[in-house]
Amino acid sequence: MTHRIAILGASGYTGAELVRLIATHPEMEIVALSADRKAGQDMAEVFPFLRHLTLPKLVKIEEIDFSQVDLAFCALPHATTQKVVAALPKDLKIVDLSADFRLRDVADYEKWYGQPHFAPELQPEAVYGLTEFYREEIRNARLVAGTGCNAATGQYALRPLISAGVIDLDRIVLDLKAGVSGAGRSLKENLLHAELSEGTHSYSAGGKHRHLGEFDQEFSKLAGRPVHVQFTPHLMPFNRGILMTVYVDGDPAVIHQTLADAYKDETFIQVLPFGALPSTRDVRGSNFCHIGVTGDRVPGRATIVAVLDNLTKGSSGQALQNANLMLGIEETTGLMLAPVFP
Amino acid sequence: MTHRIAILGASGYTGAELVRLIATHPEMEIVALSADRKAGQDMAEVFPFLRHLTLPKLVKIEEIDFSQVDLAFCALPHATTQKVVAALPKDLKIVDLSADFRLRDVADYEKWYGQPHFAPELQPEAVYGLTEFYREEIRNARLVAGTGCNAATGQYALRPLISAGVIDLDRIVLDLKAGVSGAGRSLKENLLHAELSEGTHSYSAGGKHRHLGEFDQEFSKLAGRPVHVQFTPHLMPFNRGILMTVYVDGDPAVIHQTLADAYKDETFIQVLPFGALPSTRDVRGSNFCHIGVTGDRVPGRATIVAVLDNLTKGSSGQALQNANLMLGIEETTGLMLAPVFP
Amino acid sequence: MTHRIAILGASGYTGAELVRLIATHPEMEIVALSADRKAGQDMAEVFPFLRHLTLPKLVKIEEIDFSQVDLAFCALPHATTQKVVAALPKDLKIVDLSADFRLRDVADYEKWYGQPHFAPELQPEAVYGLTEFYREEIRNARLVAGTGCNAATGQYALRPLISAGVIDLDRIVLDLKAGVSGAGRSLKENLLHAELSEGTHSYSAGGKHRHLGEFDQEFSKLAGRPVHVQFTPHLMPFNRGILMTVYVDGDPAVIHQTLADAYKDETFIQVLPFGALPSTRDVRGSNFCHIGVTGDRVPGRATIVAVLDNLTKGSSGQALQNANLMLGIEETTGLMLAPVFP
Amino acid sequence: MTHRIAILGASGYTGAELVRLIATHPEMEIVALSADRKAGQDMAEVFPFLRHLTLPKLVKIEEIDFSQVDLAFCALPHATTQKVVAALPKDLKIVDLSADFRLRDVADYEKWYGQPHFAPELQPEAVYGLTEFYREEIRNARLVAGTGCNAATGQYALRPLISAGVIDLDRIVLDLKAGVSGAGRSLKENLLHAELSEGTHSYSAGGKHRHLGEFDQEFSKLAGRPVHVQFTPHLMPFNRGILMTVYVDGDPAVIHQTLADAYKDETFIQVLPFGALPSTRDVRGSNFCHIGVTGDRVPGRATIVAVLDNLTKGSSGQALQNANLMLGIEETTGLMLAPVFP
Repeated sequence: MTHRIAILGASGYTGAELVRLIATHPEMEIVALSADRKAGQDMAEVFPFLRHLTLPKLVKIEEIDFSQVDLAFCALPHATTQKVVAALPKDLKIVDLSADFRLRDVADYEKWYGQPHFAPELQPEAVYGLTEFYREEIRNARLVAGTGCNAATGQYALRPLISAGVIDLDRIVLDLKAGVSGAGRSLKENLLHAELSEGTHSYSAGGKHRHLGEFDQEFSKLAGRPVHVQFTPHLMPFNRGILMTVYVDGDPAVIHQTLADAYKDETFIQVLPFGALPSTRDVRGSNFCHIGVTGDRVPGRATIVAVLDNLTKGSSGQALQNANLMLGIEETTGLMLAPVFP
Repeated sequence: MTHRIAILGASGYTGAELVRLIATHPEMEIVALSADRKAGQDMAEVFPFLRHLTLPKLVKIEEIDFSQVDLAFCALPHATTQKVVAALPKDLKIVDLSADFRLRDVADYEKWYGQPHFAPELQPEAVYGLTEFYREEIRNARLVAGTGCNAATGQYALRPLISAGVIDLDRIVLDLKAGVSGAGRSLKENLLHAELSEGTHSYSAGGKHRHLGEFDQEFSKLAGRPVHVQFTPHLMPFNRGILMTVYVDGDPAVIHQTLADAYKDETFIQVLPFGALPSTRDVRGSNFCHIGVTGDRVPGRATIVAVLDNLTKGSSGQALQNANLMLGIEETTGLMLAPVFP
Repeated sequence: MTHRIAILGASGYTGAELVRLIATHPEMEIVALSADRKAGQDMAEVFPFLRHLTLPKLVKIEEIDFSQVDLAFCALPHATTQKVVAALPKDLKIVDLSADFRLRDVADYEKWYGQPHFAPELQPEAVYGLTEFYREEIRNARLVAGTGCNAATGQYALRPLISAGVIDLDRIVLDLKAGVSGAGRSLKENLLHAELSEGTHSYSAGGKHRHLGEFDQEFSKLAGRPVHVQFTPHLMPFNRGILMTVYVDGDPAVIHQTLADAYKDETFIQVLPFGALPSTRDVRGSNFCHIGVTGDRVPGRATIVAVLDNLTKGSSGQALQNANLMLGIEETTGLMLAPVFP
Repeated sequence: MTHRIAILGASGYTGAELVRLIATHPEMEIVALSADRKAGQDMAEVFPFLRHLTLPKLVKIEEIDFSQVDLAFCALPHATTQKVVAALPKDLKIVDLSADFRLRDVADYEKWYGQPHFAPELQPEAVYGLTEFYREEIRNARLVAGTGCNAATGQYALRPLISAGVIDLDRIVLDLKAGVSGAGRSLKENLLHAELSEGTHSYSAGGKHRHLGEFDQEFSKLAGRPVHVQFTPHLMPFNRGILMTVYVDGDPAVIHQTLADAYKDETFIQVLPFGALPSTRDVRGSNFCHIGVTGDRVPGRATIVAVLDNLTKGSSGQALQNANLMLGIEETTGLMLAPVFP
């Protein structure tokens, strides 16, 4: 059976990544693509790498007949998204890739994003899209809120440890190295090649990065008490990939075993042998997440490193995995593409 | 039906790329992987990006039971290859990715590669592996010799024009920009990141690059007279991708039309609208080749730009396309992966 | 003696490069820096890499007291420049880095830049700033028009050959590889890191690049007849550096000797031994230009490769070299910084 | 007065960087360059970017007449260095850039480097080369041991804080991002462009990196008690630059003030305004170190970020700064080159 798919916001990187993945998905067909400012253009003009595909022209959202759509991916900027989703048919299945429905508490959204929530009535039905931990809710959801790519990476490293109570909750440091495609296709001086290549710098340091809202929500819920991690992102001179180095207090061997046990049946989460640490290059272009653990000469301290591709497992691949569940398709369908190396 | 595949030389980039592609090929199963110096290791140790796959251990070639193999890909260094292939069963289907069987005339091989040919008795049965132009011979071949990646790019741009007689055969300049993975995984100072990134330089300039042997053979055969192109390669600070800028004397509109006609039924060769020129980024990780043509203010001159991914369409993707033909599988099977951008 | 320097347009890359060079120049002092949109800011806010220097605050041009300025560098966008320069004191020495005064014939400017010339009355006194070929005129000039960076590179490769009559003037192909800083600090989608890194593409192909106006003007003047070269630029995924590959008809040995003779007394132009070809990495951050020549297996054809740093020898270094001459300072002062490698 | 300089090990990156810096140093002349395997070659063959300089040919160390040398820089691999230095004249001033004399306790050397110390008799006179903190000892030293580049970066961030007692000594995490030139010009698979570009990974994690020996020695000495930091290095896909993110327990404002006070008279150490964090791009090719401090939403935690160029301030620039002191030259001579951006 072929499911009919719409992608709203197809002119950005996550929209294009969805098209790339669905291109070889045997049970989905793209029936509508929207991009407000580029409406009327062919996808091949906006993304020549998709030239070989037969795709519908880009249109404005209001031109789409949603009665012919089984599921819509919404890859729009935050804030815009709440208004758009509120106007869509109430029975349309939606996987949202923005930040707009990730935070359950509307007040948290307003705190972290600095603006009012424009669809608070929809928030209660939104399911947080971290597939491995919300699988059953997602299967039955109408509206799934994709996670932040950094937030996903940190959670893969930490959730089983918090659940198992094997680390000190007041001593968690996350040092992030993030590829630039996570910042999107927006025109900002600091995203120019000449500004960004050949070096690195931190940004949103000191507890200001918005994905902290997700960490706080999820970790505190798991722990049953407030958990406030430290989190410093660094922008990397490469396009795809996130590497999260996590410093915790706990027994390294126990931590490794806890993670290995938690993910032993998960197709996309690969826990490396103790002491081996992963590279972003090894998950590039794929839906896999690799996690490694090592000890330290300081007893009782461990370092966890998790990597994934921000556009795939961190965003569009996760979205497709969730859509598979929502449509009753086998979860890994279309997602077994091997990473691209070198 | 599942065909049983061996990959000889699986620890190099083209070997790994074959594994990547076959990973989602529905009619092939990898039953043997060889890597002499790394025999005994798991593929996941040599290439952690393949960690999610269940693959046979790396072995030495002599440990492989070829009676259980339907087709072998040979991704070994040149010279070594001739000796290895000569020792394989005489009825084994082989797709060779090295330079060892590309040149029909053994004397040409010895001239360009500076060493004797170690399997001259096999040379006559070797079919040159440029699929779109040798499709029927490949379908019936036992031994197919994959083309040079640069040689393939230049031929896609020029073969139809030489056949049609629409360009001056004595005025062909090919200026190549080649990603570094084409140089393989060998330890050379000039391939270090610190030496290669952040700049460019030419190499093998002045008529010395070995792929000239292929250009001479193929273009002269097509033209029915000797054709000697000028060819200057430049090494690029990126991993995948070849861009060939071709300067010719001829009518730009006729040239464009000739190419568009020649490739109108070819899945993997995409001719852009007149005046549009392609980027290597748009074919990255895929089996597609994009070709563009533009005119010049100097009348009677045209510029053709062709791009492909050296590891895919230029090497392992081409090899798989040929293997599909040799095994009676639909030619595009396993090769419709969309390019990875950004 | 210390000369008082103003830099107009100090918030762009060429402005910043001038500050970098003048920082260790023993006979110049920066007394004014302008940047209209960033007026009021410290240079360290706009360019933190200059934080260690004591510099005047950024101001608007009209706030500068030019009676206290000996020479002004004008690093403004084209078109803007003509208006600004026309309004400056008529006895102020000016080195312009824009395209606005490069073309002697106002009609040529209007053709290549698609807009009227706003200071035609100043054009006759503008001297073309290719130092090695206009040294005496520059020494006595009030207004010097810096060359295009690509135009400079091609001219270093070709001028002596055209003057000596040793190449076929109707058979000149220039294939350019240009680092991205040449495109400036402007916000364009195709200059984003995610769009530009990890690949290459051509632009302004087919006789459309504006620097052709300079090639036509200079080469035709040298030859005493119209010369129209073919010129295809390619954008490179690195920041600094230009590599120009030039294909000509002529005797390679004669060509090499002609270049070696022409530049034997020039500090900044280094002709390599015959057959050796240069890398952009070897001139990075410096005022040097390296040139190599090789022959071809096709008799009577030669390939010349010239490299320079577009921001230094191609722009701000050239400008400083010219300013030294105009102010009676030894020409190489402040310009002997070694390239930065790796 | 011109001092006569020898550079031993001139064919590596730190040797070449010394030549680059000394090229514009007004009081030093290079009289000898050694490179055992490349003896007999011109420096321009080994490093074409130095082509414009007049330099002595590369020779073997034993060919150098040290009676004509005032100071030797020793840029050789560790272990080799101890034997070479032991054989040099006992009154020759030496600045060593290797790890061989950094650790005061010979047992520490043997522990971290896994081999016996070959010149224990010289160890007592070796002065640790972190200029800003050992200035007077260096001025009077005969043998100065340059610091590790990573060790220098971490110490600039932490020494004043440990001395002032304003951070918790048992809670120090250093997360390092290191450019690849720090690994030298050695032929290792993981340093190839195709392996290293477009991603990142950690290495020597878990308390195994050798620069921990320096941290332990220096921090414990300052604190008067053992201090064992956590330290995780990550290899970056760029050539020059180190960024160290340091997580500490302490009052952010006090930490910032302590650093600002400590470095207020230091030319090369620039403390940014509170809350501003530095980029490696802003010190590229220069002898500057930029340091920033920010607080966290978790009270009592601070993040410090320090950047420098590993080849300059982290190695050859530091060495030159120390040589200036040892030879009675003004400390900053030859080192005021501005960073190169972009």
